[in-house]
Amino acid sequence: MTSNSLGKIFTFSTWGESHGKAIGCIVDGVPSKITLSEKDIQFYLNKRRPGQSKFTTQRKEKDEVEILSGVFEGLTTGHPISLIIRNEDQRPKDYSDIKDKLRPGHADYTYWLKYGIRDYRGGGRSSARETAMRVAAGSIARKIIEKKTNNSVKIKGALIQVGDIKIDYKNWNDDFIDQNDFFSPDKKVIPDWEHTISKARKNGSSLGAIIEVRCSGIPAGLGEPIYDKLDAELAKAMMSINAVKGVEIGNGFESVTLPGESNVDEIRIKNGKPIFLSNNSGGILGGISTGQDIIIRFCVKPTSSILKSRKTIDINMKETEITTKGRHDPCVGIRAVPVGEAMMATTLADHCLRFL
Amino acid sequence: MTSNSLGKIFTFSTWGESHGKAIGCIVDGVPSKITLSEKDIQFYLNKRRPGQSKFTTQRKEKDEVEILSGVFEGLTTGHPISLIIRNEDQRPKDYSDIKDKLRPGHADYTYWLKYGIRDYRGGGRSSARETAMRVAAGSIARKIIEKKTNNSVKIKGALIQVGDIKIDYKNWNDDFIDQNDFFSPDKKVIPDWEHTISKARKNGSSLGAIIEVRCSGIPAGLGEPIYDKLDAELAKAMMSINAVKGVEIGNGFESVTLPGESNVDEIRIKNGKPIFLSNNSGGILGGISTGQDIIIRFCVKPTSSILKSRKTIDINMKETEITTKGRHDPCVGIRAVPVGEAMMATTLADHCLRFL
Amino acid sequence: MTSNSLGKIFTFSTWGESHGKAIGCIVDGVPSKITLSEKDIQFYLNKRRPGQSKFTTQRKEKDEVEILSGVFEGLTTGHPISLIIRNEDQRPKDYSDIKDKLRPGHADYTYWLKYGIRDYRGGGRSSARETAMRVAAGSIARKIIEKKTNNSVKIKGALIQVGDIKIDYKNWNDDFIDQNDFFSPDKKVIPDWEHTISKARKNGSSLGAIIEVRCSGIPAGLGEPIYDKLDAELAKAMMSINAVKGVEIGNGFESVTLPGESNVDEIRIKNGKPIFLSNNSGGILGGISTGQDIIIRFCVKPTSSILKSRKTIDINMKETEITTKGRHDPCVGIRAVPVGEAMMATTLADHCLRFL
Amino acid sequence: MTSNSLGKIFTFSTWGESHGKAIGCIVDGVPSKITLSEKDIQFYLNKRRPGQSKFTTQRKEKDEVEILSGVFEGLTTGHPISLIIRNEDQRPKDYSDIKDKLRPGHADYTYWLKYGIRDYRGGGRSSARETAMRVAAGSIARKIIEKKTNNSVKIKGALIQVGDIKIDYKNWNDDFIDQNDFFSPDKKVIPDWEHTISKARKNGSSLGAIIEVRCSGIPAGLGEPIYDKLDAELAKAMMSINAVKGVEIGNGFESVTLPGESNVDEIRIKNGKPIFLSNNSGGILGGISTGQDIIIRFCVKPTSSILKSRKTIDINMKETEITTKGRHDPCVGIRAVPVGEAMMATTLADHCLRFL
Repeated sequence: MTSNSLGKIFTFSTWGESHGKAIGCIVDGVPSKITLSEKDIQFYLNKRRPGQSKFTTQRKEKDEVEILSGVFEGLTTGHPISLIIRNEDQRPKDYSDIKDKLRPGHADYTYWLKYGIRDYRGGGRSSARETAMRVAAGSIARKIIEKKTNNSVKIKGALIQVGDIKIDYKNWNDDFIDQNDFFSPDKKVIPDWEHTISKARKNGSSLGAIIEVRCSGIPAGLGEPIYDKLDAELAKAMMSINAVKGVEIGNGFESVTLPGESNVDEIRIKNGKPIFLSNNSGGILGGISTGQDIIIRFCVKPTSSILKSRKTIDINMKETEITTKGRHDPCVGIRAVPVGEAMMATTLADHCLRFL
Repeated sequence: MTSNSLGKIFTFSTWGESHGKAIGCIVDGVPSKITLSEKDIQFYLNKRRPGQSKFTTQRKEKDEVEILSGVFEGLTTGHPISLIIRNEDQRPKDYSDIKDKLRPGHADYTYWLKYGIRDYRGGGRSSARETAMRVAAGSIARKIIEKKTNNSVKIKGALIQVGDIKIDYKNWNDDFIDQNDFFSPDKKVIPDWEHTISKARKNGSSLGAIIEVRCSGIPAGLGEPIYDKLDAELAKAMMSINAVKGVEIGNGFESVTLPGESNVDEIRIKNGKPIFLSNNSGGILGGISTGQDIIIRFCVKPTSSILKSRKTIDINMKETEITTKGRHDPCVGIRAVPVGEAMMATTLADHCLRFL
Repeated sequence: MTSNSLGKIFTFSTWGESHGKAIGCIVDGVPSKITLSEKDIQFYLNKRRPGQSKFTTQRKEKDEVEILSGVFEGLTTGHPISLIIRNEDQRPKDYSDIKDKLRPGHADYTYWLKYGIRDYRGGGRSSARETAMRVAAGSIARKIIEKKTNNSVKIKGALIQVGDIKIDYKNWNDDFIDQNDFFSPDKKVIPDWEHTISKARKNGSSLGAIIEVRCSGIPAGLGEPIYDKLDAELAKAMMSINAVKGVEIGNGFESVTLPGESNVDEIRIKNGKPIFLSNNSGGILGGISTGQDIIIRFCVKPTSSILKSRKTIDINMKETEITTKGRHDPCVGIRAVPVGEAMMATTLADHCLRFL
Repeated sequence: MTSNSLGKIFTFSTWGESHGKAIGCIVDGVPSKITLSEKDIQFYLNKRRPGQSKFTTQRKEKDEVEILSGVFEGLTTGHPISLIIRNEDQRPKDYSDIKDKLRPGHADYTYWLKYGIRDYRGGGRSSARETAMRVAAGSIARKIIEKKTNNSVKIKGALIQVGDIKIDYKNWNDDFIDQNDFFSPDKKVIPDWEHTISKARKNGSSLGAIIEVRCSGIPAGLGEPIYDKLDAELAKAMMSINAVKGVEIGNGFESVTLPGESNVDEIRIKNGKPIFLSNNSGGILGGISTGQDIIIRFCVKPTSSILKSRKTIDINMKETEITTKGRHDPCVGIRAVPVGEAMMATTLADHCLRFL
């Protein structure tokens, strides 16, 4: 299995560089006879698309996806679905100043050591532009989950913290998430976030963020012991997103400070069905879904491409300083929300096909 | 690839139930001509072995490992190494009271729904007893890393928090870690931990913990984009350990509250070699090792098997209460330290064989 | 995926050397709640067991299998099934004469170059003794196929050629196959085979053979394009058996000499169901089962361990001659019959679990 | 691992339908810093291209390949190489007559049962058009082999039998292979083949063929026991080619009729190096390359798309007859020669990267 692929039964393999000709992916393992069109995919791509608000990068990409195979007369055929997005707003010139400089906080240094090739154009393969294809694959994954679960499943990501400003869970409103530029579930936090992000941008600085993804309506029984536990695979999927440094399931690190009896989710029967009195486990026990909401959080470090000058070295191992101009997200965590949703969707689709 | 296996080139596959005849694993992908004996493996198994202090389970298992194949005249042959440990202190009777009760916080409920079979003897396959084989595989992984890196690498895990009591990093002493029952690097925290664990045990309660695993001396260049990033695979490996609910690399969740310019690890040249001025990245950039120390933390929730009575259901979906007697760890996080080390070792050995 | 494993959903991984402590395997991906005991496995192991007639090796091995995990109270649990056979009749001394000699026609030369370790005891890992574990895995595979197809499937191997003496297909009698020492479906060919094998043994020579494996009652739809075609996977499985040099499906190489219109299997409807007027395809079209009998043949070269002296070299790259004493099969193809059946069973079980 | 992919370290994944928008593949696992351009790939594609002689299909496809990723400034980057060929000469109308008819001898029947979707346009995904992408991947595989072996390796396929007319091995001339429309190594057989193929075409019939692929200069030690034997993987690779029904290594089925002492390849030392006195093994012992020429043969059944009327059924399970017009190869085995070479190249490249 190539390191550019994810999944066992439902799989996707991405390719392409930030400022190359195109990016794309093959989505495989999709059952036949599922309705699928470019529109279905575009809907989710548009959420991640750059250039939509002043709080994200100003790179202009329509991110128009084309289906090249695997769909015939509007239905999936059971064969690989090849997707492509032509890059439009390539500006390799933006990078000519820093052509030989290894941007600290990015993959430039490690890629240079490992591959001995420098695609200076926005990081080449290591760019977060690759995540567009995760979102595309995620949109197809959603179709599979819908079919396998009779539309019972809802996957929803939200931004819950920017810098040190957290949302208030009491204000959580699912509907509001798609009505603001931050995927915030909390209307009240917006002015503070606008203020802090604008300030960071003006200062040539950047901010980290925390994303929470919830999935409701998923059947019990998904996931496989011992190493392909559902939470282990979700952790891998989320940690593979650019700039992610931490992942937690359910109450996560908070569980450490609870006594065992408080942390255990007790079980009762209601209307003939088991219900849990709490959800500290985040919907997963022993690596297998319980039927409760699956809840995962991951953090995204502050964007490393900033205007402030930083010390670094170049490809000749000479000391230098770097200032990253160009069109960068002051808080790359915002656009990670649809990506996190996509990783939840692809992981669950894979397990749906293994189990249901 | 079966869900009971981990790794791509260096792989291991475990089998066995907590109170079955035996547990074991196959370790494969080991290069030929590495010296290996049972003693090499036993050394690490003994660290994880139950019954060694009053702060861990009183189950008595010698955990004596036997090598059944793959070693000839003291050297690895390049063929699969089969390991077995016969279970000795099986006490299925301990579980007869709760034979039909689904222990909350454990995999009992999800296994019952998924498999329709109930191995009530200590959770059967879902028991943390399986982690003995991770430790065994880890000891062989260390041999590979030694060979591939000329003994430059040191992998060391430590307990850094029990309940809400944290170590003081200023007191960190690597040598002390193996000189106490808690794998603590901080001598001063010991009395507090002893007190809190003893109290929890007396109360029939339990405590969570945080483990930090550090690896120094690892060469730059290990890890593979995009989905097999070293941090993504470490996250999966750690999250697959029983009771783990969160994982973070480098400064992890703390990175969210730093401005970009503080979070970026700046680079300089010293004695002709690149050095980093900080290690917020935890030794990994773009999913590839930088050569700095790899630092990972994971949390272990409080043991779910406790004396305090909890509400639950049985296999007939009837409401009941449960009190878990038997010989349980009041803080299962302690014995997770050598397991975390082992997961670091197996993941790195796999990447060493891919790259070096 | 390790090279000692086969299968995607139903998988098995073997370990052990010819004259080591034991041989064994892990069978994984087995659904829960299938009845399984050692007896089920032993039945098939006994067919392959050495020392049963004067036409096979005189090594005495009871080949008694022990189930170490994955079965609880007589039912599979859905977790890995670990099997072990302790070696009994180890006679490393038989090999002391040829300790440093690389037996031509065997893996000795290539293993020596690749691994730099010489397990002179009967070829170590490269010995056909490993195939006992294929047969064990095959017996569990049959259980899965039975369950998934309601016992509709029959898998039957037969010896159809020894040296240049072929059976007459007109005499084919399924019942007779298990009533003779050769797995011959043709009673009339027996005297000729007895004579030719006895002669070869007396002469210190050996004979090749062809095996045919048929599978009836398998549902249409098994197999996956493009690279995991059912026939491609069967070809790999059969070619992986020791000493196999060729594989063909359906009419195989004979198809070359037929005009297209004769080779095509025409289709009609009978009792409302499609039937084929011939079976040149061997039950597979486009890599997917048609529902017709699956028919595969493979050839086994004459045993390379013979009494006649042959030119070879030793591990020091010195010229020498070799005479292989010990207890060898004059026609190793005979005992390949249950192995071929097992490879058919494991491959089909894997595809049953992918599709049914 | 998806069924549309092959390989473990060097992998390729193909996509696309015969008369869809395009076909393509992702080639992954390619080391960085190998020179690669479209021209390198096109050279081999042109050998397989249709419409080049009256003995192959008249479909006109330039088969112009475009590299979309993974190459930067003429060098491979170590990241996935995405290739695409736009289909030009799509004529779905050719298939309108037989839209609902299941072509016997093709995958139509099994795909219909398995997927419930009918891409009537030349078989859709099951078309041999897919093999263009195997050839493309093979051309990149050759680059890797060249680099890893210092250009010592030569991979050459040839047609050795058409219908019942075989070449004479005594006339074998490597240079002649690329100088005729049949990839024949024997000049003298050409007139007979021209005659028999022309006759088959006129009769609305078709012919089978046998292809032999030889590889010289490959180092000893490639291949992995037990299930990823080099011969087992080659067998799978060749059997996965459309219309292939049999595969043999070395002397293959002929080995059955030789006594053991004649079949064994004896070893001597010449100029300090081991040499074999024969090559019945086809360059592979115990699944590992010996350093001798690797020799494999596979047969291709006669084209199933013929003008002669055949009995079949339609998608409504009604009896009908079919006559396949359109532009079909009278002997599809001819164009299988470069495909067989490609499969040899991809398999060897994968093992080169595992071992060298």
